[in-house]
Amino acid sequence: MKARIYIVGMGPGREEMMTVEAIQVLEQSDVIVGYPVYLKLLGERFQDKEFLSTPMKQEKERCLMCFAEALKGKQVSLICSGDAGIYGLASLMYELGREYPEVELIVIPGITAASSGAAVLGAPLNHDFCVISLSDLLTPWEKIEKRLTAAAEGDFAIAIYNPSSHKRHDYLQKACDILLASIEGERACGYVENIGRDGTRAVTCTLRELRDANVNMFTTVFIGNSGSEIMDGKLVTRRGYSI
Amino acid sequence: MKARIYIVGMGPGREEMMTVEAIQVLEQSDVIVGYPVYLKLLGERFQDKEFLSTPMKQEKERCLMCFAEALKGKQVSLICSGDAGIYGLASLMYELGREYPEVELIVIPGITAASSGAAVLGAPLNHDFCVISLSDLLTPWEKIEKRLTAAAEGDFAIAIYNPSSHKRHDYLQKACDILLASIEGERACGYVENIGRDGTRAVTCTLRELRDANVNMFTTVFIGNSGSEIMDGKLVTRRGYSI
Repeated sequence: MKARIYIVGMGPGREEMMTVEAIQVLEQSDVIVGYPVYLKLLGERFQDKEFLSTPMKQEKERCLMCFAEALKGKQVSLICSGDAGIYGLASLMYELGREYPEVELIVIPGITAASSGAAVLGAPLNHDFCVISLSDLLTPWEKIEKRLTAAAEGDFAIAIYNPSSHKRHDYLQKACDILLASIEGERACGYVENIGRDGTRAVTCTLRELRDANVNMFTTVFIGNSGSEIMDGKLVTRRGYSI
Repeated sequence: MKARIYIVGMGPGREEMMTVEAIQVLEQSDVIVGYPVYLKLLGERFQDKEFLSTPMKQEKERCLMCFAEALKGKQVSLICSGDAGIYGLASLMYELGREYPEVELIVIPGITAASSGAAVLGAPLNHDFCVISLSDLLTPWEKIEKRLTAAAEGDFAIAIYNPSSHKRHDYLQKACDILLASIEGERACGYVENIGRDGTRAVTCTLRELRDANVNMFTTVFIGNSGSEIMDGKLVTRRGYSI
Protein backbone atom coordinates (compact mmCIF):
# COMPACT_ATOMS: atom_id res chain seq x y z
CA MET A 1 0.00 0.00 0.00
CA LYS A 2 1.17 3.52 -0.76
CA ALA A 3 2.20 5.72 2.17
CA ARG A 4 -0.45 8.34 2.81
CA ILE A 5 -0.43 11.89 4.12
CA TYR A 6 -3.71 13.49 5.14
CA ILE A 7 -3.88 17.26 4.72
CA VAL A 8 -6.53 18.21 7.24
CA GLY A 9 -8.56 21.39 7.56
CA MET A 10 -9.30 21.86 11.25
CA GLY A 11 -11.81 24.70 10.84
CA PRO A 12 -11.64 27.83 12.98
CA GLY A 13 -10.19 26.16 16.07
CA ARG A 14 -12.81 24.64 18.39
CA GLU A 15 -12.93 20.87 18.10
CA GLU A 16 -16.74 20.94 17.66
CA MET A 17 -16.23 22.82 14.43
CA MET A 18 -14.08 20.07 12.93
CA THR A 19 -15.75 17.43 10.82
CA VAL A 20 -16.12 13.90 12.17
CA GLU A 21 -13.83 12.72 9.38
CA ALA A 22 -11.07 15.19 10.33
CA ILE A 23 -11.17 13.99 13.94
CA GLN A 24 -11.07 10.34 12.85
CA VAL A 25 -8.08 10.93 10.59
CA LEU A 26 -6.16 12.73 13.35
CA GLU A 27 -7.01 9.95 15.82
CA GLN A 28 -5.60 7.37 13.42
CA SER A 29 -2.38 9.33 12.83
CA ASP A 30 0.97 8.62 14.42
CA VAL A 31 2.29 12.10 13.75
CA ILE A 32 0.47 15.43 13.52
CA VAL A 33 2.40 18.21 11.81
CA GLY A 34 1.32 21.85 11.96
CA TYR A 35 2.02 25.43 12.88
CA PRO A 36 2.51 25.56 16.69
CA VAL A 37 -0.57 27.77 17.32
CA TYR A 38 -2.86 25.21 15.67
CA LEU A 39 -1.28 22.21 17.40
CA LYS A 40 -2.07 23.93 20.71
CA LEU A 41 -5.74 24.18 19.76
CA LEU A 42 -6.02 20.39 19.51
CA GLY A 43 -7.77 18.85 22.48
CA GLU A 44 -6.81 16.24 25.08
CA ARG A 45 -7.72 13.31 22.92
CA PHE A 46 -4.79 13.94 20.59
CA GLN A 47 -2.15 14.36 23.29
CA ASP A 48 -0.67 10.89 22.77
CA LYS A 49 0.35 11.81 19.22
CA GLU A 50 3.78 12.90 18.14
CA PHE A 51 3.54 16.64 17.34
CA LEU A 52 5.99 18.22 14.90
CA SER A 53 6.11 21.82 13.76
CA THR A 54 8.15 24.51 12.08
CA PRO A 55 7.89 28.28 12.67
CA MET A 56 5.99 30.71 10.43
CA LYS A 57 7.57 31.22 6.97
CA GLN A 58 9.00 27.69 7.11
CA GLU A 59 6.01 26.15 5.36
CA LYS A 60 8.13 24.30 2.84
CA GLU A 61 10.17 22.69 5.64
CA ARG A 62 6.91 21.76 7.39
CA CYS A 63 5.67 20.01 4.25
CA LEU A 64 8.96 18.20 3.68
CA MET A 65 8.80 17.00 7.29
CA CYS A 66 5.50 15.27 6.43
CA PHE A 67 7.02 13.37 3.52
CA ALA A 68 10.04 12.37 5.65
CA GLU A 69 7.77 10.97 8.38
CA ALA A 70 5.52 9.18 5.89
CA LEU A 71 8.55 7.48 4.36
CA LYS A 72 9.41 6.12 7.82
CA GLY A 73 6.13 4.22 7.60
CA LYS A 74 4.13 6.50 9.89
CA GLN A 75 0.62 7.75 9.27
CA VAL A 76 0.95 11.51 9.02
CA SER A 77 -1.59 14.33 9.19
CA LEU A 78 -0.69 17.90 8.30
CA ILE A 79 -3.16 20.30 9.92
CA CYS A 80 -4.07 23.74 8.61
CA SER A 81 -6.54 26.20 10.09
CA GLY A 82 -9.83 26.55 8.23
CA ASP A 83 -9.69 24.55 5.00
CA ALA A 84 -6.26 23.22 3.95
CA GLY A 85 -7.15 23.93 0.31
CA ILE A 86 -8.05 27.61 0.86
CA TYR A 87 -4.81 29.57 1.50
CA GLY A 88 -3.54 26.44 3.26
CA LEU A 89 -0.73 24.05 2.45
CA ALA A 90 -2.58 21.63 0.13
CA SER A 91 -1.18 23.09 -3.12
CA LEU A 92 2.38 23.27 -1.78
CA MET A 93 2.06 19.60 -0.75
CA TYR A 94 0.98 18.63 -4.27
CA GLU A 95 3.86 20.62 -5.78
CA LEU A 96 6.45 19.01 -3.50
CA GLY A 97 4.70 15.65 -3.83
CA ARG A 98 5.87 15.32 -7.43
CA GLU A 99 9.21 14.23 -5.93
CA TYR A 100 7.49 11.55 -3.82
CA PRO A 101 5.43 9.41 -6.20
CA GLU A 102 5.31 6.69 -3.53
CA VAL A 103 3.24 8.93 -1.24
CA GLU A 104 -0.50 9.50 -1.71
CA LEU A 105 -2.00 12.83 -0.63
CA ILE A 106 -5.56 13.10 0.65
CA VAL A 107 -7.20 16.44 1.48
CA ILE A 108 -9.82 16.44 4.25
CA PRO A 109 -11.85 19.64 3.86
CA GLY A 110 -12.60 21.93 6.80
CA ILE A 111 -14.76 24.95 7.56
CA THR A 112 -13.02 28.01 6.10
CA ALA A 113 -13.36 31.47 7.67
CA ALA A 114 -15.67 32.59 4.85
CA SER A 115 -18.22 30.03 6.11
CA SER A 116 -17.63 30.29 9.84
CA GLY A 117 -17.37 34.07 9.87
CA ALA A 118 -20.46 34.42 7.70
CA ALA A 119 -22.43 32.24 10.14
CA VAL A 120 -21.55 34.59 13.01
CA LEU A 121 -22.47 37.73 11.05
CA GLY A 122 -25.72 36.35 9.57
CA ALA A 123 -25.71 35.39 5.89
CA PRO A 124 -23.37 37.77 4.00
CA LEU A 125 -22.29 35.22 1.36
CA ASN A 126 -25.68 33.86 0.46
CA HIS A 127 -25.17 34.69 -3.22
CA ASP A 128 -22.17 34.67 -5.61
CA PHE A 129 -19.04 35.76 -3.78
CA CYS A 130 -15.25 36.22 -3.97
CA VAL A 131 -12.61 35.36 -1.43
CA ILE A 132 -9.54 37.62 -1.51
CA SER A 133 -6.48 37.67 0.76
CA LEU A 134 -4.79 41.03 1.35
CA SER A 135 -1.49 39.38 2.22
CA ASP A 136 1.15 40.40 -0.31
CA LEU A 137 3.77 38.00 1.04
CA LEU A 138 3.17 35.62 -1.88
CA THR A 139 1.10 37.80 -4.25
CA PRO A 140 2.03 41.15 -5.82
CA TRP A 141 -0.15 43.96 -4.43
CA GLU A 142 -1.09 45.03 -7.99
CA LYS A 143 -2.77 41.65 -8.49
CA ILE A 144 -4.70 42.06 -5.25
CA GLU A 145 -5.85 45.54 -6.39
CA LYS A 146 -6.96 44.14 -9.72
CA ARG A 147 -9.01 41.45 -8.00
CA LEU A 148 -10.68 43.93 -5.67
CA THR A 149 -11.67 46.05 -8.67
CA ALA A 150 -12.99 43.01 -10.56
CA ALA A 151 -14.97 41.85 -7.50
CA ALA A 152 -16.61 45.26 -7.21
CA GLU A 153 -17.38 45.34 -10.94
CA GLY A 154 -19.03 41.93 -10.76
CA ASP A 155 -21.16 43.01 -7.79
CA PHE A 156 -19.91 40.04 -5.78
CA ALA A 157 -20.20 39.78 -2.03
CA ILE A 158 -16.59 39.61 -0.80
CA ALA A 159 -14.83 37.83 2.05
CA ILE A 160 -11.41 39.31 2.84
CA TYR A 161 -8.76 37.18 4.58
CA ASN A 162 -5.61 38.55 6.22
CA PRO A 163 -6.87 42.16 6.24
CA SER A 164 -4.00 43.35 8.41
CA SER A 165 -0.76 42.46 10.15
CA HIS A 166 1.98 44.37 11.94
CA LYS A 167 3.71 45.28 8.72
CA ARG A 168 0.51 45.82 6.74
CA HIS A 169 -1.56 47.84 9.20
CA ASP A 170 -3.12 50.05 6.49
CA TYR A 171 -3.98 47.36 3.91
CA LEU A 172 -7.68 47.21 4.72
CA GLN A 173 -7.82 50.98 4.33
CA LYS A 174 -6.12 50.70 0.93
CA ALA A 175 -8.52 47.94 -0.11
CA CYS A 176 -11.57 49.93 0.97
CA ASP A 177 -10.33 52.96 -0.98
CA ILE A 178 -10.15 50.81 -4.12
CA LEU A 179 -13.65 49.46 -3.51
CA LEU A 180 -15.02 52.94 -2.70
CA ALA A 181 -14.07 54.03 -6.23
CA SER A 182 -17.04 52.02 -7.52
CA ILE A 183 -19.11 51.04 -4.45
CA GLU A 184 -21.21 53.47 -2.41
CA GLY A 185 -19.96 54.34 1.09
CA GLU A 186 -23.20 53.10 2.64
CA ARG A 187 -22.68 49.49 1.41
CA ALA A 188 -23.48 46.98 4.19
CA CYS A 189 -20.33 45.32 5.56
CA GLY A 190 -19.10 43.55 8.67
CA TYR A 191 -16.18 41.79 10.26
CA VAL A 192 -15.56 39.02 12.75
CA GLU A 193 -12.59 38.56 15.05
CA ASN A 194 -11.47 35.26 16.63
CA ILE A 195 -14.08 33.12 14.91
CA GLY A 196 -14.81 29.94 16.84
CA ARG A 197 -12.39 30.85 19.64
CA ASP A 198 -12.56 32.80 22.89
CA GLY A 199 -13.33 36.46 22.36
CA THR A 200 -15.38 36.18 19.16
CA ARG A 201 -16.48 39.68 18.21
CA ALA A 202 -18.77 40.53 15.28
CA VAL A 203 -19.40 44.06 14.02
CA THR A 204 -21.66 45.29 11.22
CA CYS A 205 -20.91 48.64 9.59
CA THR A 206 -20.87 50.55 6.31
CA LEU A 207 -18.01 50.33 3.81
CA ARG A 208 -16.97 53.84 4.81
CA GLU A 209 -16.82 52.83 8.48
CA LEU A 210 -14.98 49.62 7.58
CA ARG A 211 -12.18 51.71 6.08
CA ASP A 212 -11.22 52.90 9.55
CA ALA A 213 -12.07 49.73 11.47
CA ASN A 214 -9.56 48.26 13.86
CA VAL A 215 -8.79 44.82 12.45
CA ASN A 216 -5.94 42.38 12.97
CA MET A 217 -4.62 39.12 11.57
CA PHE A 218 -7.43 37.20 13.29
CA THR A 219 -10.18 39.22 11.60
CA THR A 220 -12.21 38.16 8.55
CA VAL A 221 -13.96 40.98 6.70
CA PHE A 222 -17.20 40.79 4.70
CA ILE A 223 -18.43 43.27 2.09
CA GLY A 224 -22.00 42.91 0.93
CA ASN A 225 -23.21 43.09 -2.66
CA SER A 226 -25.61 45.77 -3.93
CA GLY A 227 -28.58 43.96 -2.37
CA SER A 228 -27.09 43.27 1.06
CA GLU A 229 -28.70 44.73 4.12
CA ILE A 230 -28.18 44.90 7.85
CA MET A 231 -31.27 43.32 9.44
CA ASP A 232 -31.55 43.42 13.22
CA GLY A 233 -27.79 43.54 13.56
CA LYS A 234 -27.12 40.75 11.04
CA LEU A 235 -25.46 41.20 7.63
CA VAL A 236 -27.69 39.50 5.07
CA THR A 237 -27.15 39.06 1.32
CA ARG A 238 -30.38 37.95 -0.31
CA ARG A 239 -30.48 35.15 -2.81
CA GLY A 240 -33.61 36.62 -4.37
CA TYR A 241 -36.60 34.58 -3.20
CA SER A 242 -39.77 36.65 -3.46
CA ILE A 243 -41.19 37.03 0.02
CA MET B 1 -35.44 32.27 26.93
CA LYS B 2 -35.99 33.11 23.28
CA ALA B 3 -37.13 30.31 20.97
CA ARG B 4 -34.27 29.25 18.74
CA ILE B 5 -33.98 27.87 15.23
CA TYR B 6 -30.69 26.36 14.11
CA ILE B 7 -29.94 26.67 10.40
CA VAL B 8 -27.58 23.78 9.83
CA GLY B 9 -25.17 23.11 6.96
CA MET B 10 -24.92 19.35 6.61
CA GLY B 11 -22.01 19.34 4.15
CA PRO B 12 -22.04 17.18 1.04
CA GLY B 13 -24.11 14.35 2.49
CA ARG B 14 -22.06 11.76 4.40
CA GLU B 15 -22.44 12.10 8.14
CA GLU B 16 -18.64 12.00 8.61
CA MET B 17 -18.41 15.23 6.64
CA MET B 18 -20.71 17.08 9.07
CA THR B 19 -19.12 19.01 11.91
CA VAL B 20 -19.45 17.69 15.45
CA GLU B 21 -21.45 20.81 16.29
CA ALA B 22 -23.95 20.18 13.47
CA ILE B 23 -24.53 16.61 14.68
CA GLN B 24 -24.96 17.79 18.28
CA VAL B 25 -27.50 20.43 17.26
CA LEU B 26 -29.54 17.92 15.23
CA GLU B 27 -29.42 15.43 18.12
CA GLN B 28 -30.84 18.06 20.47
CA SER B 29 -33.63 19.04 18.08
CA ASP B 30 -37.24 17.95 18.31
CA VAL B 31 -37.96 18.71 14.68
CA ILE B 32 -35.68 18.60 11.64
CA VAL B 33 -36.97 20.49 8.61
CA GLY B 34 -35.44 20.08 5.16
CA TYR B 35 -35.75 19.20 1.51
CA PRO B 36 -36.73 15.50 1.33
CA VAL B 37 -33.50 14.39 -0.43
CA TYR B 38 -31.39 15.78 2.42
CA LEU B 39 -33.56 14.36 5.18
CA LYS B 40 -33.03 10.92 3.62
CA LEU B 41 -29.27 11.36 3.87
CA LEU B 42 -29.48 11.66 7.66
CA GLY B 43 -28.40 8.51 9.45
CA GLU B 44 -30.05 6.15 11.91
CA ARG B 45 -29.27 8.22 14.95
CA PHE B 46 -31.73 10.92 13.89
CA GLN B 47 -34.61 8.59 13.11
CA ASP B 48 -36.49 9.41 16.35
CA LYS B 49 -36.85 13.03 15.27
CA GLU B 50 -39.92 14.57 13.72
CA PHE B 51 -39.07 15.20 10.04
CA LEU B 52 -40.90 17.93 8.12
CA SER B 53 -40.38 18.96 4.53
CA THR B 54 -41.77 20.86 1.56
CA PRO B 55 -41.07 20.15 -2.12
CA MET B 56 -38.57 22.07 -4.27
CA LYS B 57 -39.57 25.67 -5.02
CA GLN B 58 -41.47 25.82 -1.72
CA GLU B 59 -38.51 27.17 0.20
CA LYS B 60 -40.49 30.00 1.73
CA GLU B 61 -43.08 27.56 3.07
CA ARG B 62 -40.26 25.40 4.46
CA CYS B 63 -38.85 28.38 6.34
CA LEU B 64 -42.25 29.45 7.68
CA MET B 65 -42.75 25.88 8.90
CA CYS B 66 -39.65 26.31 11.06
CA PHE B 67 -41.00 29.45 12.71
CA ALA B 68 -44.40 27.80 13.31
CA GLU B 69 -42.74 24.81 15.02
CA ALA B 70 -40.42 27.00 17.10
CA LEU B 71 -43.41 28.99 18.35
CA LYS B 72 -44.93 25.72 19.60
CA GLY B 73 -41.93 25.52 21.94
CA LYS B 74 -40.01 22.93 19.95
CA GLN B 75 -36.29 23.04 19.20
CA VAL B 76 -36.07 23.24 15.42
CA SER B 77 -33.22 22.63 12.99
CA LEU B 78 -33.47 23.54 9.33
CA ILE B 79 -30.96 21.54 7.29
CA CYS B 80 -29.41 22.63 4.01
CA SER B 81 -26.85 20.76 1.93
CA GLY B 82 -23.32 22.17 2.03
CA ASP B 83 -23.28 25.42 3.98
CA ALA B 84 -26.67 26.97 4.80
CA GLY B 85 -25.21 30.43 4.21
CA ILE B 86 -23.90 29.65 0.70
CA TYR B 87 -26.87 29.42 -1.70
CA GLY B 88 -28.80 27.93 1.24
CA LEU B 89 -31.77 29.19 3.22
CA ALA B 90 -29.98 31.29 5.87
CA SER B 91 -30.69 34.64 4.21
CA LEU B 92 -34.36 33.82 3.56
CA MET B 93 -34.69 32.85 7.23
CA TYR B 94 -33.27 36.21 8.32
CA GLU B 95 -35.60 38.04 5.95
CA LEU B 96 -38.67 36.19 7.19
CA GLY B 97 -37.38 36.36 10.76
CA ARG B 98 -38.06 40.07 10.91
CA GLU B 99 -41.70 39.10 11.53
CA TYR B 100 -40.67 36.84 14.42
CA PRO B 101 -38.61 38.96 16.83
CA GLU B 102 -39.24 36.36 19.55
CA VAL B 103 -37.23 33.74 17.63
CA GLU B 104 -33.42 33.69 17.58
CA LEU B 105 -31.65 32.32 14.50
CA ILE B 106 -28.30 30.57 14.73
CA VAL B 107 -26.36 29.45 11.65
CA ILE B 108 -24.16 26.34 12.02
CA PRO B 109 -21.67 26.36 9.14
CA GLY B 110 -21.05 23.31 6.97
CA ILE B 111 -18.62 22.17 4.29
CA THR B 112 -19.70 23.80 1.02
CA ALA B 113 -19.10 22.10 -2.35
CA ALA B 114 -16.29 24.57 -3.16
CA SER B 115 -14.32 23.04 -0.26
CA SER B 116 -15.38 19.42 -0.58
CA GLY B 117 -15.12 19.32 -4.37
CA ALA B 118 -11.74 21.04 -4.28
CA ALA B 119 -10.44 18.41 -1.85
CA VAL B 120 -11.39 15.63 -4.28
CA LEU B 121 -9.78 17.38 -7.27
CA GLY B 122 -6.58 18.43 -5.45
CA ALA B 123 -6.20 22.09 -4.52
CA PRO B 124 -7.90 24.22 -7.22
CA LEU B 125 -8.95 27.05 -4.86
CA ASN B 126 -5.68 27.51 -3.04
CA HIS B 127 -5.56 31.20 -3.94
CA ASP B 128 -8.16 33.98 -4.35
CA PHE B 129 -11.35 32.57 -5.87
CA CYS B 130 -14.96 33.27 -6.85
CA VAL B 131 -18.04 31.13 -6.35
CA ILE B 132 -20.73 31.59 -9.02
CA SER B 133 -24.03 29.75 -9.48
CA LEU B 134 -25.32 29.32 -13.03
CA SER B 135 -28.90 28.96 -11.85
CA ASP B 136 -30.99 31.81 -13.23
CA LEU B 137 -34.07 30.90 -11.22
CA LEU B 138 -33.41 33.75 -8.79
CA THR B 139 -30.76 35.76 -10.66
CA PRO B 140 -31.00 37.38 -14.12
CA TRP B 141 -28.69 35.63 -16.59
CA GLU B 142 -27.12 38.98 -17.54
CA LYS B 143 -25.85 39.33 -13.97
CA ILE B 144 -24.34 35.86 -14.10
CA GLU B 145 -22.59 36.74 -17.38
CA LYS B 146 -21.23 39.92 -15.86
CA ARG B 147 -19.83 38.00 -12.91
CA LEU B 148 -18.16 35.39 -15.11
CA THR B 149 -16.49 38.18 -17.09
CA ALA B 150 -15.35 39.95 -13.91
CA ALA B 151 -14.00 36.67 -12.48
CA ALA B 152 -11.95 36.08 -15.62
CA GLU B 153 -10.67 39.66 -15.62
CA GLY B 154 -9.55 39.34 -12.01
CA ASP B 155 -7.72 36.06 -12.76
CA PHE B 156 -9.64 34.33 -9.99
CA ALA B 157 -9.90 30.58 -9.68
CA ILE B 158 -13.64 29.87 -10.01
CA ALA B 159 -16.00 27.33 -8.46
CA ILE B 160 -19.27 26.98 -10.40
CA TYR B 161 -22.38 25.67 -8.65
CA ASN B 162 -25.51 24.46 -10.44
CA PRO B 163 -23.81 24.17 -13.84
CA SER B 164 -26.76 22.38 -15.40
CA SER B 165 -30.31 21.14 -14.96
CA HIS B 166 -33.00 19.68 -17.21
CA LYS B 167 -34.12 23.12 -18.35
CA ARG B 168 -30.62 24.62 -18.46
CA HIS B 169 -28.65 21.86 -20.17
CA ASP B 170 -26.43 24.26 -22.16
CA TYR B 171 -25.59 26.75 -19.40
CA LEU B 172 -22.10 25.45 -18.73
CA GLN B 173 -21.39 25.72 -22.46
CA LYS B 174 -22.64 29.32 -22.43
CA ALA B 175 -20.52 30.09 -19.36
CA CYS B 176 -17.40 28.55 -20.93
CA ASP B 177 -17.93 30.59 -24.09
CA ILE B 178 -17.96 33.76 -22.01
CA LEU B 179 -14.79 32.71 -20.18
CA LEU B 180 -13.09 31.65 -23.43
CA ALA B 181 -13.38 35.24 -24.66
CA SER B 182 -10.57 36.17 -22.26
CA ILE B 183 -9.10 32.88 -20.98
CA GLU B 184 -6.99 30.50 -23.09
CA GLY B 185 -8.59 27.20 -24.11
CA GLU B 186 -5.78 25.23 -22.42
CA ARG B 187 -6.60 26.60 -18.94
CA ALA B 188 -6.56 23.80 -16.33
CA CYS B 189 -10.07 22.92 -15.12
CA GLY B 190 -11.95 20.06 -13.50
CA TYR B 191 -15.28 18.92 -12.17
CA VAL B 192 -16.63 16.62 -9.50
CA GLU B 193 -19.92 14.74 -9.43
CA ASN B 194 -21.67 13.42 -6.31
CA ILE B 195 -19.18 14.83 -3.83
CA GLY B 196 -19.16 12.88 -0.56
CA ARG B 197 -21.81 10.43 -1.80
CA ASP B 198 -21.82 7.15 -3.68
CA GLY B 199 -20.48 7.48 -7.21
CA THR B 200 -18.07 10.36 -6.66
CA ARG B 201 -16.38 11.07 -9.98
CA ALA B 202 -13.61 13.62 -10.55
CA VAL B 203 -12.35 14.71 -13.94
CA THR B 204 -9.57 17.14 -14.88
CA CYS B 205 -9.60 18.78 -18.30
CA THR B 206 -8.93 21.98 -20.21
CA LEU B 207 -11.42 24.85 -20.41
CA ARG B 208 -12.10 23.93 -24.03
CA GLU B 209 -12.90 20.35 -23.02
CA LEU B 210 -15.00 21.54 -20.10
CA ARG B 211 -17.26 23.39 -22.55
CA ASP B 212 -18.53 20.05 -23.84
CA ALA B 213 -18.39 18.11 -20.58
CA ASN B 214 -21.38 16.12 -19.47
CA VAL B 215 -22.43 17.71 -16.17
CA ASN B 216 -25.61 17.65 -14.15
CA MET B 217 -27.17 19.27 -11.10
CA PHE B 218 -24.91 17.23 -8.81
CA THR B 219 -21.70 18.48 -10.45
CA THR B 220 -19.43 21.24 -9.14
CA VAL B 221 -17.08 22.77 -11.69
CA PHE B 222 -13.66 24.31 -11.06
CA ILE B 223 -11.74 26.66 -13.34
CA GLY B 224 -8.12 27.34 -12.51
CA ASN B 225 -6.41 30.72 -12.53
CA SER B 226 -3.50 31.59 -14.86
CA GLY B 227 -1.06 29.68 -12.64
CA SER B 228 -3.10 26.51 -12.15
CA GLU B 229 -1.72 23.22 -13.37
CA ILE B 230 -2.74 19.60 -13.59
CA MET B 231 -0.15 17.62 -11.59
CA ASP B 232 -0.37 13.83 -11.63
CA GLY B 233 -4.10 14.03 -12.27
CA LYS B 234 -4.81 16.67 -9.62
CA LEU B 235 -5.90 20.26 -10.30
CA VAL B 236 -3.58 22.54 -8.32
CA THR B 237 -3.64 26.33 -7.97
CA ARG B 238 -0.39 27.53 -6.42
CA ARG B 239 -0.33 30.06 -3.66
CA GLY B 240 3.13 31.14 -4.68
CA TYR B 241 5.62 29.64 -2.25
CA SER B 242 9.07 29.40 -3.83
CA ILE B 243 10.07 25.78 -3.98
